[in-house]
Amino acid sequence: MFELDPILKKDTIELADWSLSKLLLMNDSQYPWFILVPKVAGVTEIIDLNEAQRETLMAESCRLATLLKEVFKPKKLNIAALGNVVSQLHVHHVARYETDKAWPAPIWGVHPVVPYTEQQLEQLMKLSQW
Amino acid sequence: MFELDPILKKDTIELADWSLSKLLLMNDSQYPWFILVPKVAGVTEIIDLNEAQRETLMAESCRLATLLKEVFKPKKLNIAALGNVVSQLHVHHVARYETDKAWPAPIWGVHPVVPYTEQQLEQLMKLSQW
Repeated sequence: MFELDPILKKDTIELADWSLSKLLLMNDSQYPWFILVPKVAGVTEIIDLNEAQRETLMAESCRLATLLKEVFKPKKLNIAALGNVVSQLHVHHVARYETDKAWPAPIWGVHPVVPYTEQQLEQLMKLSQW
Repeated sequence: MFELDPILKKDTIELADWSLSKLLLMNDSQYPWFILVPKVAGVTEIIDLNEAQRETLMAESCRLATLLKEVFKPKKLNIAALGNVVSQLHVHHVARYETDKAWPAPIWGVHPVVPYTEQQLEQLMKLSQW
């Protein structure tokens, strides 16, 4: 049975439950940083998904990327399945700006997270129908 | 008309021409590091591809990931579309080991590249039918 990895659970806020994946917001106010986690037990790589699940992951990733482009108007999206620390398959979607703290480097492990305030979170929730 | 970005051209070795993407080997002997570049002019994000191209990209990414698992037997694959420096859409596929130089951090920008020797390249070419 699928269960969200405890580290992902601790570090994120659940925004929505899509058909294949949970949509999580990383609790780091430095970047608009979202994570899709396919609700499939025991998968660590995209190739562990079956064909139909892979197609749905692509569709959900593109749905999220389209939302992020509209809402945050970033310079670039960074989309990545890494998983060296948390092996449960999860796909990062980060809206990047030339003015953000890590640009042009990737964001992972560069700066300690800065959690959202309650007010920031409320505002973020209102930005879109997640 | 599609033309490979000059930085990608300089930093990589072309291994194969698949139906949608060029398959490139990053000339960095520290990691088995491959790049898929869809041969579509003017795209910077996966969502810039049409539906059919997105499906083919997913299929080619999984074909490459399957090859990398078989050939290199990594601990984890890192698959990422970043593009903060080179905006032309390209998808990194890196075979990662707990013993590699950057583990568990992502590899980008961590250590200066160490080009392959001619002999190493020859051996790598023989590992698979790319």
